[in-house]
Amino acid sequence: THLRHGSFAASAMEEVLRRTVVPLPAYEIQGKSPPVPESNSMEFINFYRSLETSQKVAFLEKVSQEFGVDHQAVAELALKLVESQKRDAATMLQAEDRLRYYLTPRYLALFGHISRVEGGMKFLLDLRGDVIEALAAKATDSPHIRGLNATLKSMLSEWFSVGLLKLERITWKSPCELLQKISQYEAVHPVRNWTDIKHRVGPYRRCYAFTNGAMPGEPLVFLHVALTEEITDNIQTIFGGRTSQELTEDEKKVKAAVFYSISSTQVGLQGVELGNYLIKRVVRELQSEFPSLDQFSSLSPIPGFTVWLLGLLNQQRNDGRRSKILMDTEWQEIERLVGSPAPERLRKLLSTNEWVHSEQLMDILKPILMRLCSWYLYGEKHRSYALNQVANFHLQNGATMWRLNWKADMSPRGISASCGMMVNYRYFLPDIGANSAKYLRTKVIEASEQILNLVSQFQKNSKL
Amino acid sequence: THLRHGSFAASAMEEVLRRTVVPLPAYEIQGKSPPVPESNSMEFINFYRSLETSQKVAFLEKVSQEFGVDHQAVAELALKLVESQKRDAATMLQAEDRLRYYLTPRYLALFGHISRVEGGMKFLLDLRGDVIEALAAKATDSPHIRGLNATLKSMLSEWFSVGLLKLERITWKSPCELLQKISQYEAVHPVRNWTDIKHRVGPYRRCYAFTNGAMPGEPLVFLHVALTEEITDNIQTIFGGRTSQELTEDEKKVKAAVFYSISSTQVGLQGVELGNYLIKRVVRELQSEFPSLDQFSSLSPIPGFTVWLLGLLNQQRNDGRRSKILMDTEWQEIERLVGSPAPERLRKLLSTNEWVHSEQLMDILKPILMRLCSWYLYGEKHRSYALNQVANFHLQNGATMWRLNWKADMSPRGISASCGMMVNYRYFLPDIGANSAKYLRTKVIEASEQILNLVSQFQKNSKL
Amino acid sequence: THLRHGSFAASAMEEVLRRTVVPLPAYEIQGKSPPVPESNSMEFINFYRSLETSQKVAFLEKVSQEFGVDHQAVAELALKLVESQKRDAATMLQAEDRLRYYLTPRYLALFGHISRVEGGMKFLLDLRGDVIEALAAKATDSPHIRGLNATLKSMLSEWFSVGLLKLERITWKSPCELLQKISQYEAVHPVRNWTDIKHRVGPYRRCYAFTNGAMPGEPLVFLHVALTEEITDNIQTIFGGRTSQELTEDEKKVKAAVFYSISSTQVGLQGVELGNYLIKRVVRELQSEFPSLDQFSSLSPIPGFTVWLLGLLNQQRNDGRRSKILMDTEWQEIERLVGSPAPERLRKLLSTNEWVHSEQLMDILKPILMRLCSWYLYGEKHRSYALNQVANFHLQNGATMWRLNWKADMSPRGISASCGMMVNYRYFLPDIGANSAKYLRTKVIEASEQILNLVSQFQKNSKL
Amino acid sequence: THLRHGSFAASAMEEVLRRTVVPLPAYEIQGKSPPVPESNSMEFINFYRSLETSQKVAFLEKVSQEFGVDHQAVAELALKLVESQKRDAATMLQAEDRLRYYLTPRYLALFGHISRVEGGMKFLLDLRGDVIEALAAKATDSPHIRGLNATLKSMLSEWFSVGLLKLERITWKSPCELLQKISQYEAVHPVRNWTDIKHRVGPYRRCYAFTNGAMPGEPLVFLHVALTEEITDNIQTIFGGRTSQELTEDEKKVKAAVFYSISSTQVGLQGVELGNYLIKRVVRELQSEFPSLDQFSSLSPIPGFTVWLLGLLNQQRNDGRRSKILMDTEWQEIERLVGSPAPERLRKLLSTNEWVHSEQLMDILKPILMRLCSWYLYGEKHRSYALNQVANFHLQNGATMWRLNWKADMSPRGISASCGMMVNYRYFLPDIGANSAKYLRTKVIEASEQILNLVSQFQKNSKL
Repeated sequence: THLRHGSFAASAMEEVLRRTVVPLPAYEIQGKSPPVPESNSMEFINFYRSLETSQKVAFLEKVSQEFGVDHQAVAELALKLVESQKRDAATMLQAEDRLRYYLTPRYLALFGHISRVEGGMKFLLDLRGDVIEALAAKATDSPHIRGLNATLKSMLSEWFSVGLLKLERITWKSPCELLQKISQYEAVHPVRNWTDIKHRVGPYRRCYAFTNGAMPGEPLVFLHVALTEEITDNIQTIFGGRTSQELTEDEKKVKAAVFYSISSTQVGLQGVELGNYLIKRVVRELQSEFPSLDQFSSLSPIPGFTVWLLGLLNQQRNDGRRSKILMDTEWQEIERLVGSPAPERLRKLLSTNEWVHSEQLMDILKPILMRLCSWYLYGEKHRSYALNQVANFHLQNGATMWRLNWKADMSPRGISASCGMMVNYRYFLPDIGANSAKYLRTKVIEASEQILNLVSQFQKNSKL
Repeated sequence: THLRHGSFAASAMEEVLRRTVVPLPAYEIQGKSPPVPESNSMEFINFYRSLETSQKVAFLEKVSQEFGVDHQAVAELALKLVESQKRDAATMLQAEDRLRYYLTPRYLALFGHISRVEGGMKFLLDLRGDVIEALAAKATDSPHIRGLNATLKSMLSEWFSVGLLKLERITWKSPCELLQKISQYEAVHPVRNWTDIKHRVGPYRRCYAFTNGAMPGEPLVFLHVALTEEITDNIQTIFGGRTSQELTEDEKKVKAAVFYSISSTQVGLQGVELGNYLIKRVVRELQSEFPSLDQFSSLSPIPGFTVWLLGLLNQQRNDGRRSKILMDTEWQEIERLVGSPAPERLRKLLSTNEWVHSEQLMDILKPILMRLCSWYLYGEKHRSYALNQVANFHLQNGATMWRLNWKADMSPRGISASCGMMVNYRYFLPDIGANSAKYLRTKVIEASEQILNLVSQFQKNSKL
Repeated sequence: THLRHGSFAASAMEEVLRRTVVPLPAYEIQGKSPPVPESNSMEFINFYRSLETSQKVAFLEKVSQEFGVDHQAVAELALKLVESQKRDAATMLQAEDRLRYYLTPRYLALFGHISRVEGGMKFLLDLRGDVIEALAAKATDSPHIRGLNATLKSMLSEWFSVGLLKLERITWKSPCELLQKISQYEAVHPVRNWTDIKHRVGPYRRCYAFTNGAMPGEPLVFLHVALTEEITDNIQTIFGGRTSQELTEDEKKVKAAVFYSISSTQVGLQGVELGNYLIKRVVRELQSEFPSLDQFSSLSPIPGFTVWLLGLLNQQRNDGRRSKILMDTEWQEIERLVGSPAPERLRKLLSTNEWVHSEQLMDILKPILMRLCSWYLYGEKHRSYALNQVANFHLQNGATMWRLNWKADMSPRGISASCGMMVNYRYFLPDIGANSAKYLRTKVIEASEQILNLVSQFQKNSKL
Repeated sequence: THLRHGSFAASAMEEVLRRTVVPLPAYEIQGKSPPVPESNSMEFINFYRSLETSQKVAFLEKVSQEFGVDHQAVAELALKLVESQKRDAATMLQAEDRLRYYLTPRYLALFGHISRVEGGMKFLLDLRGDVIEALAAKATDSPHIRGLNATLKSMLSEWFSVGLLKLERITWKSPCELLQKISQYEAVHPVRNWTDIKHRVGPYRRCYAFTNGAMPGEPLVFLHVALTEEITDNIQTIFGGRTSQELTEDEKKVKAAVFYSISSTQVGLQGVELGNYLIKRVVRELQSEFPSLDQFSSLSPIPGFTVWLLGLLNQQRNDGRRSKILMDTEWQEIERLVGSPAPERLRKLLSTNEWVHSEQLMDILKPILMRLCSWYLYGEKHRSYALNQVANFHLQNGATMWRLNWKADMSPRGISASCGMMVNYRYFLPDIGANSAKYLRTKVIEASEQILNLVSQFQKNSKL
């Protein structure tokens, strides 16, 4: 059923769009248009699904360009609005409303109709997923598609508004279907098997998800929490060392809640903030279950650090001189262990994860990597905010960059990502509102003394 | 806690709004504003709830007027948009998007924040209920309030989008809380007691509701259906004559589904079409339960007919001449029974419901009222659509005005409303799409022969 | 379908029993008999249901007499058992087991088969209900029927063993069907309407039931509890004075749990103790919900007191002398108020509930009725246990007769039953085991000082 | 906490039993004994659990011997019963009832009390499991323990009476906990992983369990069904060849229901027939879901056939002559393929499963193994019933031995058990009542022509 020939595809697209996209009714008769038959939406859905990836992009470009805003009409109304400014409030407001109405792209109504048929909402989620992937893959750069993406995002953010989501606790008694999804979607620490997932929903653990009541088996975002006596500084403790499911929780031992994984499941909801709300709802839930629980913190990965570090080492090699991100004495020590040329060797060892097999090398590297990583987290920026996305997420939520942990995730994945380090972002509840506002407005990162010390060591000993 | 003095109230309002309504962030940093603390929303909610009705209107006027659109900024951007027309697509699209952004009233963000706190969604539903009542009661006529109403409606219509609602069947095993609400909200045929509601969810009956998963106990709109052998022509049959709950349904006797009551529960969702979707979903549900079921019809009240009729009689009395809505021979017959002056007497008998005590009078009036009522339904218009709102609802859905029924609701309520008549709007499934489109576009009402005959009798024998 | 003629009925019964009651298989092949077809059981059920009440009794007499134990076989085995005493353990045990087997009435297997068909368990519950009623109505006095009753009771007590029952909390969100049953079965304080039952499951109230998982909508026994600051001394406080459902519970105000009603729903489970276990389970449940809750008490009716009192007054009248249950001075006071002859007048006023209309009379009667009632509860016995069944129930459970309350139930029902008095049986948790054992073994009633004082006043001032 | 020294253990046992086992109350005051405190039962449970296996047996011997029936009292009552035969019915019945009462072992009341504490029912299930294992392992041969086993079985069979069990369908949406148990308990075809179990509850499959409402997560017995177009003749088809979960069932393709696995989960319920009832309930359930489904059959393993066959071969070798279970010509053919001595070689190949690697050998063996296996199923007996337990189960249920299938389970397990063969026991619904009765009474096996032909080939060509 694939459409092989461009010209045929193009005419099929036009045919489908002609039939399925209704014109924008005149402002005066809005809300009086006949209900669009469901078959229209189904045709659109089925047609889209029959397309190959590249055709989908072409199709969406067509939709966004030809079924968007009527620019000429808008320009005329804009002129009228300018004139209306001198008139009475009612006239002015109406001019604004009229303009607002015509600024609505025609495809918005199409998406609205699709959202109402069975499976339509999920289709739109997936459609936006495609748009996001196409933009990320640079398969398109059309400003119209960007507009369509923004429109879809805005629609989805209303439909999946936090106020209408349900917090669900997931346990070993939850439906298998749900637990399987939780396992498959887990993005931070992959689930190895069913014993593993059973532990993650067992005693001293909590798993919460936001679901929409109309899609009961579909978690939108979920959060894993470990209940501990102290804020955990490594992931091994969380995954290992458990004895038995029969273990019953001792409420007195629950003094800290450690968020060790948060995953969104729907690419199509990118940019629709749910994780932030989920953390806050879970904090409230835990406080009501454990009135004396008062420490809240993440235990977060640092994706990108190793890549950043290797980039630095590489770049400086290309500069033809020994990297200044380590002091000379440090280079010498390393050279003693690994032979020369030390930078070359070190880069190799880091990029193959082999450095962790030498305890001596690890001892030498510990202070170096800790200060570099704290800088990476604290000092590296993207549009003035933290470059690292996980950091940026928690800082926006109002958390404090609290503790960098050595040997915190010694899985191959953890070593590849961040030389085995992880970081706690701590949620000091009374401060998170102020912290969040400060970070968003001033971009200043709230950090603990440990972090600030490491940063200042970096500034003293490393040169970028 | 009520605010007694206008000036104090006004300053308190300003104080609250200053604190709780955040300025619209600049277009460039949208989505980068610090999350608004929940306490803001709670303060707004509590303040609003502490106000008296008249204060609420004043408060909303202030919100809508002072925290709406920045008209000057919009006018400037409108000019820029006009200029951008000559530029490249990206520039033009951005100008449009920027204008669209600034056309957003500031209170929209406020409502968004409120929607996310616990109970916030219900608060906004109720708030819009207040707005609608204030406008209906002419407590305000501010165009700004009308704008706020439109904004709220648009937000609510996204949040309560059909695609995210759940169809729930309500039975005697449903939670009491839910059945109590179904009883209280019932708008068409009031529920007398618990035996009554038990019958309405018992054998040969179906009751379905749309609920939002996040508000499980709260039906948004619900529909009562009777499963019968023939399309029922009176409500007495539906409510009476049942024997026992123990009765088990015989699938072979289910040949018609009669929608005898549909009620919306939330004033705040006025204008957000849910009933139409509910009927269609229920039809699908019933078809899957009873594959051989193939007759679908409403049994609907005709609110307003008696009032319209008395109005006619009254108006013609004021004209000082015998009403021409009846033929002279008809007037004579009536006069023989009720004495003279017949119009006066008749009006009295109709307005007190006493005419039903005379079988003879009823016999005389039957053809007269039937033709008048069919005209009322078919011929009386409001903005070219059917004046009667129930008729308009079913016709928009694509139903056919199928059968006018005499002695169909002989309760005092039924006689007062429509001289005891009810009407079946029939849903011929293959035609409803076309019917709906035709009615909405051409305003032509699809009607059965019975109705058209009655209408032509009216046209022959009655003069308005 | 009723069987009108005795002879026909008798032969129909025989026919049915011949077909449906299988012979007891020989001991050697027990467990190897072909499964009895379900149609047998259905035939028995339907036949029984088609009988009139008197026929049912005749039928059950026939079943119990002709399909019971084979007396001759049993006698022979009994002899063999006596002989086996001199033999080895295995032989002796087998002789016992064989005798035990043949002591099983044939109808036991019939009931077993019936219990396995759909609705069979409920049929047997109802069947035993019929037996109990027939015995109570003296419609039969057959020792065989008494035997059948004992067999059924023993079977039902295994099937409805507490270890397999589920404790369910009933709230306003429970299925309407269940709440309707709770209302209908309520034996102590009849439920007036749905507002009333809503209050009884609302805030500061708890309602728990034992259900069997296989009959989900059928509560077997249920208990109503009021959560109060102090142990309540009247029922008006419990039913009245509530303001609103919206009321939320303040955990700090929950210091006492008052069991104000416990009802069994199945006559067929008479003598199968469930209430005792329900109270204990509920106590545990409440302790876990309210860790600081530490006062548990019933607020119980005293059915039979007024009847007992009127009996006394009547009997003493027939003795032709002024009753000695009141002191002469008391009689004089009463006579001043009601005229003479005082005993006659008083009896009349008490039997019509009219005495409560005079505050003066009530003041005079208060100490008298309190001491008489405390004696009725404490001193009147049936087979050495408390005559009053409610008292006997709570005392067997290990409760203490704690407080007699004046004006505790001023409803007509309460006045008719016990001159408006009620009694608290208090559950002092650490003592209930010992109390129960003491009461059952020694018949001594554990009572508070208030009760003992009242009893000693009775002994001083009243003569029976 | 283990008890190491015999004498100490013995005295501890006596101490515990003295405290926890109450004497049998006199007949006259039965039902009037104080409720046994729960702590008694908990002490018994905890003590028992602290014992080592051998101590448990000793303990149970003590319980069964010293806390059983009072033999002397019983003998005296037996004499009285004999005498009562000449008296009136009431006296005789009472003598019987009194004897029945004293024939109750004292430990029955103990078990009754234990059944009522939390977890007590499960404890008793497990306790009987221990008894059964001890008897099977010949760790005891005490007739008293056999008596205790019978008493426990009888109690458990009442508590887990089919009339009180709930049929539950298990799907991929069932709780993970439940699906894990279904996987672990699967006795017939072990579950390999979660994909496997997902398939077994997916489209064209059904899984049903009996549960007791009070132990919601605990399936007592469960049945796996494949819905197919024809009665399946091998297990590979059932487990393999599936494409996708997304597959939706086409009702028209469901013409046969194949029960391919039934497993009991509780050793303690051995001898309490549930499987039979489960199959019948599931048949009813499937008939109501698929009205046109009319073929019901098992696809059953034949455990024991290979062992039986090797036994035969071995035994005949010891007889020093070529086995007569094969014809000479057959032996010659085999010898040609495997070398001599053929019997020796064949036994080796069969016992190592290696024979399946030679297609030629399989071809030769097919008719031989088919006729031997059909005899094994049809002709080999234990106490006149089918020796093979699976066969006996289905024949007792009324099924017909319908078809022996070659290459039906080619897993190592299937080849080891029955040379890869499986058998269909077919349930012809109208006949199962008569079949069951015939089999149980006459021991005659209802078999199809295919089976009977194979049996007659065996009789012609094989000599045992």
